[in-house]
Amino acid sequence: MTTEDELKKVIADADDAINREDFGRLMELYADDATLVVMPGRTVQGKEQIRSAMARIAEFFNHTLEVSQREMLVLEGGDTALVIARTVVNANQNTDSPYFAERKATYVFRRFPDGRWRCVIDNSYGTELLSQQR
Amino acid sequence: MTTEDELKKVIADADDAINREDFGRLMELYADDATLVVMPGRTVQGKEQIRSAMARIAEFFNHTLEVSQREMLVLEGGDTALVIARTVVNANQNTDSPYFAERKATYVFRRFPDGRWRCVIDNSYGTELLSQQR
Repeated sequence: MTTEDELKKVIADADDAINREDFGRLMELYADDATLVVMPGRTVQGKEQIRSAMARIAEFFNHTLEVSQREMLVLEGGDTALVIARTVVNANQNTDSPYFAERKATYVFRRFPDGRWRCVIDNSYGTELLSQQR
Repeated sequence: MTTEDELKKVIADADDAINREDFGRLMELYADDATLVVMPGRTVQGKEQIRSAMARIAEFFNHTLEVSQREMLVLEGGDTALVIARTVVNANQNTDSPYFAERKATYVFRRFPDGRWRCVIDNSYGTELLSQQR
């Protein structure tokens, strides 16, 4: 498998784990000290915090969250990969106002000594974080 | 120094080296197998290739290139950092049509065993690479 195929598989596994709320499996795909951007201005670090943030997000969307990726682009250097992805977030929230968002995400992965890629920085907001800061 | 201050210093040093065309000093700030996005759809890897790409870019702008960063935002996880920066590229090109571009860049750095941060992925086009791909 190429690096790109390996990373696409890890990300597809992560999306599937999020959509099924299988947070145990999801946490295997993150490094111990990974960072997640929960929303612009709010980051959490470490598996325990990422896991509870994911659980709160699932709750917020009334357990109807569905994440997926459209195109993905992989840049690799120094056992590190930057994945740029068009991420789609859907949730019907069991209400009359379904939620839909498409974002250009930036995910950073590192290849660990065991050969596996794990996410070290999960920022689905990509460079939008800058505009928010202004 | 915080990670953010360390990385801002490395990036300021890199900008200064680019603007002075001091490519020897510039290359000290990259990992051996770093990747540079020269333009959308074109990447080069390794110091030798990055160095010649930088020299060609300097030539292209008639040695009037000036790069700098406005806001920067640093996300860190697993000895890896994603820097999101508003990058400004100026060049007068010694012509009547000066060049100006502002981009939202994504730079990935790794902290090496010697304690120094080195750039592993230099992508000044950020998530724009996706739009270009469509």
